[in-house]
Amino acid sequence: MLNSTTLLLLKNVTLQIMNKLSIGIIGYGYWGPNLVRNFSSLSNCKVHTVADFRSERTDLIKKNNPTINTTNNPEDLINNNEIDAIVIATPVFTHFELAKKALLANKHVLLEKPMTSTVAEAEELINLAEQKSKVLMVDHTFLYTGAVQKLKSLINGGTIGKVKYFDSTRINLGLFQPDVNVLWDLAPHDISILNYLIDDKPYSINATGVSHTNNEIENIAYLTVNYESGFIAHFNCSWTSPVKIRMLLLGGDEKMVVFNDLEPTEKIKIYDTGYSHKTDEEKQKILVDYRAGDVYIPKLESKEALFGMASDFTNAIINGDKPIADMQSGLEVIKILEASNKSIKNQGKEILLS
Amino acid sequence: MLNSTTLLLLKNVTLQIMNKLSIGIIGYGYWGPNLVRNFSSLSNCKVHTVADFRSERTDLIKKNNPTINTTNNPEDLINNNEIDAIVIATPVFTHFELAKKALLANKHVLLEKPMTSTVAEAEELINLAEQKSKVLMVDHTFLYTGAVQKLKSLINGGTIGKVKYFDSTRINLGLFQPDVNVLWDLAPHDISILNYLIDDKPYSINATGVSHTNNEIENIAYLTVNYESGFIAHFNCSWTSPVKIRMLLLGGDEKMVVFNDLEPTEKIKIYDTGYSHKTDEEKQKILVDYRAGDVYIPKLESKEALFGMASDFTNAIINGDKPIADMQSGLEVIKILEASNKSIKNQGKEILLS
Amino acid sequence: MLNSTTLLLLKNVTLQIMNKLSIGIIGYGYWGPNLVRNFSSLSNCKVHTVADFRSERTDLIKKNNPTINTTNNPEDLINNNEIDAIVIATPVFTHFELAKKALLANKHVLLEKPMTSTVAEAEELINLAEQKSKVLMVDHTFLYTGAVQKLKSLINGGTIGKVKYFDSTRINLGLFQPDVNVLWDLAPHDISILNYLIDDKPYSINATGVSHTNNEIENIAYLTVNYESGFIAHFNCSWTSPVKIRMLLLGGDEKMVVFNDLEPTEKIKIYDTGYSHKTDEEKQKILVDYRAGDVYIPKLESKEALFGMASDFTNAIINGDKPIADMQSGLEVIKILEASNKSIKNQGKEILLS
Amino acid sequence: MLNSTTLLLLKNVTLQIMNKLSIGIIGYGYWGPNLVRNFSSLSNCKVHTVADFRSERTDLIKKNNPTINTTNNPEDLINNNEIDAIVIATPVFTHFELAKKALLANKHVLLEKPMTSTVAEAEELINLAEQKSKVLMVDHTFLYTGAVQKLKSLINGGTIGKVKYFDSTRINLGLFQPDVNVLWDLAPHDISILNYLIDDKPYSINATGVSHTNNEIENIAYLTVNYESGFIAHFNCSWTSPVKIRMLLLGGDEKMVVFNDLEPTEKIKIYDTGYSHKTDEEKQKILVDYRAGDVYIPKLESKEALFGMASDFTNAIINGDKPIADMQSGLEVIKILEASNKSIKNQGKEILLS
Repeated sequence: MLNSTTLLLLKNVTLQIMNKLSIGIIGYGYWGPNLVRNFSSLSNCKVHTVADFRSERTDLIKKNNPTINTTNNPEDLINNNEIDAIVIATPVFTHFELAKKALLANKHVLLEKPMTSTVAEAEELINLAEQKSKVLMVDHTFLYTGAVQKLKSLINGGTIGKVKYFDSTRINLGLFQPDVNVLWDLAPHDISILNYLIDDKPYSINATGVSHTNNEIENIAYLTVNYESGFIAHFNCSWTSPVKIRMLLLGGDEKMVVFNDLEPTEKIKIYDTGYSHKTDEEKQKILVDYRAGDVYIPKLESKEALFGMASDFTNAIINGDKPIADMQSGLEVIKILEASNKSIKNQGKEILLS
Repeated sequence: MLNSTTLLLLKNVTLQIMNKLSIGIIGYGYWGPNLVRNFSSLSNCKVHTVADFRSERTDLIKKNNPTINTTNNPEDLINNNEIDAIVIATPVFTHFELAKKALLANKHVLLEKPMTSTVAEAEELINLAEQKSKVLMVDHTFLYTGAVQKLKSLINGGTIGKVKYFDSTRINLGLFQPDVNVLWDLAPHDISILNYLIDDKPYSINATGVSHTNNEIENIAYLTVNYESGFIAHFNCSWTSPVKIRMLLLGGDEKMVVFNDLEPTEKIKIYDTGYSHKTDEEKQKILVDYRAGDVYIPKLESKEALFGMASDFTNAIINGDKPIADMQSGLEVIKILEASNKSIKNQGKEILLS
Repeated sequence: MLNSTTLLLLKNVTLQIMNKLSIGIIGYGYWGPNLVRNFSSLSNCKVHTVADFRSERTDLIKKNNPTINTTNNPEDLINNNEIDAIVIATPVFTHFELAKKALLANKHVLLEKPMTSTVAEAEELINLAEQKSKVLMVDHTFLYTGAVQKLKSLINGGTIGKVKYFDSTRINLGLFQPDVNVLWDLAPHDISILNYLIDDKPYSINATGVSHTNNEIENIAYLTVNYESGFIAHFNCSWTSPVKIRMLLLGGDEKMVVFNDLEPTEKIKIYDTGYSHKTDEEKQKILVDYRAGDVYIPKLESKEALFGMASDFTNAIINGDKPIADMQSGLEVIKILEASNKSIKNQGKEILLS
Repeated sequence: MLNSTTLLLLKNVTLQIMNKLSIGIIGYGYWGPNLVRNFSSLSNCKVHTVADFRSERTDLIKKNNPTINTTNNPEDLINNNEIDAIVIATPVFTHFELAKKALLANKHVLLEKPMTSTVAEAEELINLAEQKSKVLMVDHTFLYTGAVQKLKSLINGGTIGKVKYFDSTRINLGLFQPDVNVLWDLAPHDISILNYLIDDKPYSINATGVSHTNNEIENIAYLTVNYESGFIAHFNCSWTSPVKIRMLLLGGDEKMVVFNDLEPTEKIKIYDTGYSHKTDEEKQKILVDYRAGDVYIPKLESKEALFGMASDFTNAIINGDKPIADMQSGLEVIKILEASNKSIKNQGKEILLS
């Protein structure tokens, strides 16, 4: 295409005239095309530039989206005054440095999950975002699904009753990540859901795991999150399962819920099933009453979760709305993940969460 | 029935003439009728007497099995010289005392799972059985299922390759036991399978759990069993799940297996799926190769597992065969369970297995 | 047992004193033990005698139920004045003759499904039962299941709306019957459900099928039942499917239902799903609106269906209640089956139902 | 984009220089984007122009594929000398006229399924294609799936044995088509699979159905295809089912197969299950032996079926290869569909296939 330069110039001028947010995206890997597509479909923003150090990836953008600028150097994007906000979709270990530079350059920042490699990094970014009065958000896409939104409303509306446990299984024959273990790869989804749904604060965790590659990066790991109230959460993560399972059990004293994300049309099943207990004063025994009842499968909102997330980010910037997946929720996930590292390295020892 | 006394006398004389083993059963609860039915259908033994302290239960036996003696006092049975072997199907906390008396009275003993309440008790019974040269066995029925026998032959035959992990989920809306927690109630099945399938010895465990009844008896618990070889086993047990799951994943470096015990006809699925890794010397990176292939569902032996267990017990007595579910395997289960108690009470701390 | 004669005599006298119905059962095959167990557990009747021409079957009864009389000659039972009602669980081709003799001997009669081999036979029995003022009923057990009772109440209560179709699949690797084809063997269940649920009267049927044994007994057959109202019913029956399917789809203009009888806990799923149509007057086109909504899985009554059927039979005799599976409903099933024979032999030709 | 005209000119010249096939596509509805994407990804052809009479659809093409010409008049495309082959993806009733014009204009033609509205039309097109020596093909995409290719090789390799039946269920809450009934809409997939897999020729069909919209267009219909050999095929099609089912059962005397197209990873299950029969000469009875064995789930080729179909079409043009979904197979489908219309209108009467 001969005159793409002219075309892009024209587009950028238009963006400013129309007062749309101008978005830059760093990293065009597996998730990149989805980010481009969703930010492009929002009416209040435009994707200005995508950066990826791999030329074959920037070539792909040029082919599929001829009106988007590309660069192989993220600094170009960070230093571009036309860009208001930066989406960082690169490996975790690069998040902190890129996000810090972007905030210092007065950009709003959206980070892919998990937020950073350490709690200290996440806290430093949060402080910086507060100083600079910029939006800092983490792409916990799952929070924007129809399923999780339904769970939230069931809990808030009192349907579930007092929630007693959260049990997540997220296993499949997955890619062994070279830099983070299976908990850092898979558990952020479920930990962010846990924190979003449950107001209670965890006080400690235990984690165990094993590495079958002897590079000390666990490919199977188990995490328990403990709460003073007696609520308990557990996560089973594996890259080495022959079957794919994405299942969350949530038990309340009124209803119990199964969230099976692989079900095409029946993701959320609500069981009018439960138990209650009382103490038989005379015999000093615990008596438990069981109830097995109807099941109800609500139709869920079917709009794309990532669109909701992108929209939440741009609305936070434009209108100052508090986003669902805000920087604090990103930090809480890192706190649990960092503690899980420590527990695994200490043979499953309980690690207190500050 | 007027002359039942005469009838029973006749039967007992016949037993001695025919040189059949004479079995006494203590405890006629949920599992009792199955024990009576299976021991009655063996050709080399007969059920002589069933004891239960509840008259409504012994009345039921009289109604259903008029040729079996009953008593409300287990001592009658233990002290009866016509009885060769005693099956103890009572609550766990009574196992030790009853089994000890039976062994001292020179009876062979079969204990329902779990074997005893403590390792010390199990070890004392084993010593006693050895002194008395009596068979002491534990009813780990699952070891006799077509499914577990198939798993054993797949592993022994080398089909699975080197086994890397064992991941069990056994959850449902279950009865809260008043005396033992959910691990003691549900995990013995899977721990006995683990020990039967895997020759490797575990060196430690971690366990976490929670009690929602505040009687300190956990209704949800998680157990990890650690091995020096890098093999790992995990158990997820709950009495408070809205759905019933009985699933075991077993991963080897040649094949992976899913054992779903709720499947009527496809309990065992063998996946020609796996991964192998090597180190890229030059780049010092771990490279992982994935393989997703065919699936094979073998037809399983369909005979009743409990019949196989009963037969193994009587053959051990008559022929001196070593039974599958022998006393040592019973002890190994108790060692893990006792350690799990300690770990839960110590916030998930690693407990070494002696 | 030496004095079984005395014992039985005692029992029969007691029956008369207590004014209980005395039941005789002819045929102790696959279904026989279930009939004995359920009639025995009713408080208003007792099983007096079971007849089977095979001595190994009557021996089995003696062993399992020592208080029940046995005979190898059904005439003994028919001619026994102590017996009030006779249950006939023999091959279909013997139903008519046995039932006729029983009615002529002033017995109430319960026939296993299907009622008879021909419409003429069924009609003759109905006439005879009316003349003799005796209860004549057919064991369409499915009508007494919690699932079918729930469907009936959903339809009667208006939840489903106007029912538009009924689509049944009942296939598995089944026993090839030597005397009746797969429709006569498997379809009576679903035809009886159809007639019970739908008040509308069918006016014709079409059937096709094939015999893979060349004895002209079809092992695969398809049946369509046509109604003037536009309602349609279809039945897919096979003895030669690798998978077992027991599924009924029921579509109304308010809700649609799936009845999957193999689901242990979710047999009935009610879909708030549908379509409505109107004609666009201007464009003379049909416009269809779709609705996909929530799903609801009601908890079903769990009592045994056969107990309900047995109870309905004895109540009809004692209290004169009209039974659910009455003789007319039995006849309607035979009308459709007889017509299906004719249609299959005439290459699927439509056969009108009188 | 200002200079799209120049751009397109450049592209078309390049096509001729590179000697690539130039494809025109008529109709850019639901299936259009898939056709454009697959033909565009082939190395031996290029999509030259897409025609759709709706401007919003041609605008969409311009937006998504700026290098493809568009027109609202199919004649433009048919009369364009630069175009070698035409893909017709319009409503069925327009197929004949468009295809005839295209063949007369010396184009190769690919028709969406079903081929035409009548057998006469299909035969006229076939004659014309033969006269003009042009490729005429029908897009029976399913024949190119890994699943159907696996079935074909299982049958040809003798694994299945002699095939005895074919039973297809293709139901869901589907769009009511305004011009063709549910059999014409859904059954072509399965009829084309049937004809591809089974060499035997059908001799007649029976069909029944019902229209719930009273426009005489059936939304539920059942079709039986009869063969002299005793093989039988049945099709259950509905636009009004609350659940989506895409299931094909295929029974051979060696193995039976379930093809469940909704299974993400286990589409084909092969059952080592069957029955064989012989006649007991003495008793003149049929004896049937059953076999229930292992199940095997082969990994399937995962390439996109439509790509295979597109490739088969262009290879047929360039190399003269006989395509899988050739015009004769298209005609055979129409013969069965046309006969089904006649049977439904004649109350299910058997219609002979010429």
